[in-house]
Amino acid sequence: MIRHLLSGADLDAGTATLVLDTAAEMATVAGREVKKLPALRGRTVVNLFYEDSTRTRISFEAAAKRLSADVINFSAKGSSVAKGESLKDTALTLQAMGADAVVVRHPASGAPHRLAEWVDGSVVNAGDGTHEHPTQALLDAYTMRSRLGRLDGLHVAIVGDVLHSRVARSNVLLLSTLGAKVTLVGPPTLIPVDIAAALATGTDVCYDLDAVLPDVDVVMMLRVQRERMGDSYFPSAREYARRYGLDGPRMRRLPEHAIVMHPGPMNRGMEITPEVADSPRSTIVEQVANGVSVRMAVLYLLLGGNNR
Amino acid sequence: MIRHLLSGADLDAGTATLVLDTAAEMATVAGREVKKLPALRGRTVVNLFYEDSTRTRISFEAAAKRLSADVINFSAKGSSVAKGESLKDTALTLQAMGADAVVVRHPASGAPHRLAEWVDGSVVNAGDGTHEHPTQALLDAYTMRSRLGRLDGLHVAIVGDVLHSRVARSNVLLLSTLGAKVTLVGPPTLIPVDIAAALATGTDVCYDLDAVLPDVDVVMMLRVQRERMGDSYFPSAREYARRYGLDGPRMRRLPEHAIVMHPGPMNRGMEITPEVADSPRSTIVEQVANGVSVRMAVLYLLLGGNNR
Amino acid sequence: MIRHLLSGADLDAGTATLVLDTAAEMATVAGREVKKLPALRGRTVVNLFYEDSTRTRISFEAAAKRLSADVINFSAKGSSVAKGESLKDTALTLQAMGADAVVVRHPASGAPHRLAEWVDGSVVNAGDGTHEHPTQALLDAYTMRSRLGRLDGLHVAIVGDVLHSRVARSNVLLLSTLGAKVTLVGPPTLIPVDIAAALATGTDVCYDLDAVLPDVDVVMMLRVQRERMGDSYFPSAREYARRYGLDGPRMRRLPEHAIVMHPGPMNRGMEITPEVADSPRSTIVEQVANGVSVRMAVLYLLLGGNNR
Repeated sequence: MIRHLLSGADLDAGTATLVLDTAAEMATVAGREVKKLPALRGRTVVNLFYEDSTRTRISFEAAAKRLSADVINFSAKGSSVAKGESLKDTALTLQAMGADAVVVRHPASGAPHRLAEWVDGSVVNAGDGTHEHPTQALLDAYTMRSRLGRLDGLHVAIVGDVLHSRVARSNVLLLSTLGAKVTLVGPPTLIPVDIAAALATGTDVCYDLDAVLPDVDVVMMLRVQRERMGDSYFPSAREYARRYGLDGPRMRRLPEHAIVMHPGPMNRGMEITPEVADSPRSTIVEQVANGVSVRMAVLYLLLGGNNR
Repeated sequence: MIRHLLSGADLDAGTATLVLDTAAEMATVAGREVKKLPALRGRTVVNLFYEDSTRTRISFEAAAKRLSADVINFSAKGSSVAKGESLKDTALTLQAMGADAVVVRHPASGAPHRLAEWVDGSVVNAGDGTHEHPTQALLDAYTMRSRLGRLDGLHVAIVGDVLHSRVARSNVLLLSTLGAKVTLVGPPTLIPVDIAAALATGTDVCYDLDAVLPDVDVVMMLRVQRERMGDSYFPSAREYARRYGLDGPRMRRLPEHAIVMHPGPMNRGMEITPEVADSPRSTIVEQVANGVSVRMAVLYLLLGGNNR
Repeated sequence: MIRHLLSGADLDAGTATLVLDTAAEMATVAGREVKKLPALRGRTVVNLFYEDSTRTRISFEAAAKRLSADVINFSAKGSSVAKGESLKDTALTLQAMGADAVVVRHPASGAPHRLAEWVDGSVVNAGDGTHEHPTQALLDAYTMRSRLGRLDGLHVAIVGDVLHSRVARSNVLLLSTLGAKVTLVGPPTLIPVDIAAALATGTDVCYDLDAVLPDVDVVMMLRVQRERMGDSYFPSAREYARRYGLDGPRMRRLPEHAIVMHPGPMNRGMEITPEVADSPRSTIVEQVANGVSVRMAVLYLLLGGNNR
């Protein structure tokens, strides 16, 4: 097993499959009366968040607590970071305090990689800038496998602001490793011609959502960053929704078995309509539940799995 | 037992008495060397707070931890809520993450009721807008019963900004169920003529605090919202304190056995003077301690009591 | 054992040595597979922070959790404190909720002492204004003893803004109790002539860092408060670093065995250069690790040690 989880590219097919299989075992715990496992008792997991992300922080916190780890939340706002402490000194401090794993969310791409050079414990990238979010890719892969029975040979469309999306990037890397084919869909300004090739061989690009839909097993809608609306990359909100939003008529062009994914939180009415979000094809709530199982598996394998 | 606790009206006399009796059992735990009970081990309680309320949040957190539940605090400020996520999507997310109970504080009256429609787990209303705060009413009832030996037939004056007070509203509902008589006292702008009838039959209104005091067993002072001072509802602060504040001379007009309550935090010198707040008649600190016992009872009955 | 830890002066030599010896036992736990001790199971530790200090809060939180205590974090920002609740009412509230220990950080010097008058539980001063920070002094003493084998007879230079430093004040008090000699070093505006005598007999003052270095066993660099730069006490940043910053050439004037300490977070390039901070003489990371052990010892002795 690897020591850190920084990128979708850290995982070869065998390791990724081990994580997904372990997550499936963890998911069975959720059905029991007592949902706690003693696996990480006495271990400390620090959630080091330089950006607000309640959803991701809670998912990791719930995962760690179900494994009986102690969890310490460190929101970098208003902390000594604001007093000018470097990331390195923060890392050394957390390590000295006994952090066995640091789950880090940071606005700068690459920050978790630098952190991993300085600590003896494990680092889990919980989203760095526009770069990567590997546990999101794992929970997405888990959800596809669980709904469709396999990953190898699946055709997945990732739709939206691919250029700035760490979710897209980690998914492309992991899905290619696991044998799925990805097509990136969105406005040309958000999908530079060379991005697909740069990410993984075999990844396609298409600027026309309607052309892609009849041929995919999975359509993964990315969250629109409203604050980015109106800048040079982005069409107007209305124009975006008209061309790249998933609504009922578009959903009905998908093959019968195809599923609709979204990493959340959704902008209902923008990239996805309520009709689609709440339809049986939508896996959005399952993705959240699977996120806890996948993060249990990741923490278990990084911190405890080797010793047992 | 009920599945959610949203309103003082959710509790019939039998259920309310069961909560108070269970709280009395929980209170005995506080005297032991090890104060923890294993009753909710493996259960997850989420504190979902859309408004700051450290006092209420800590009370629920202490209650849940003494029952060995895992507690996750979710302050909605700066979260995906701020990114426009709907209450429904937040609810579905928390449920998917395995929340067995959601304790919710929300500025909008009725928000906990809507939440309860969307989740399978239990919802506890920890204060919604100007609407209700049922665990406050339960801890107040517990405190009265503990100090005065009964609830049936007690006469309780609730004094202050009744119109905007969720504490008043929940207390009126619960106290009438339990056989106490309530008189609402305050400036006419803050006690519309029809509010008492609308809340519960048998509730009286009086605009003269001095006239009421000799006849009550309990006087419950409401917190003055300073930020509301000077608006059309409110007299000036000095005028308010002069007419509706409880000071030493007024306290001495109470019957010998009568008690003084306040939900906290107090504005000493405004609705209550230090002499009164710190007198032996005051139950203010007991109310806080009873709050933890009552919330242990509520969480235990909602989450665990049915199975055992 | 004492009931509260408010000041370095609360500890006589015997008690201080007991804390350091207990911390050494606690440190051995960190090497085990399961780092948790059951010593404080069922006890509640509240971190009551009126100032942000993530580093200190996390250290206490990690210490309490390793002893199996429940930890409740109370950031006073945006709480009922902001609604005007007095420190006394907050104290009574926390006590009523069952806090066995309150760890308090407050901008007002003396606040923890007042808190201790009102609660039955234990109060630990985690930094009050410019006054004291006794657990920092204990972890510093622990680090010196661990690196140099003794405290009695050591010569310690404390360098920087002594006037406003609670770290300096607590260290002077504790080190004199334990038989070490302290020399205060810094600009005259920051070391009034009478401060040394006022703190402890035998404490010296020197305004020339270079003159002191060849003669000390320990040089402890204080953090520069950048926000204070340019006020009447402070020389310019560049002038400060030139005269009182510790760089490589200055470090090499220390005796061979001497160590360099800093309470963190550092301003690299201001009071200390990276060459010094990262050298083998530097104990900065050890201090952080020792902080958790020392705080475990303090909580254990205040809350549990007497009963066992």
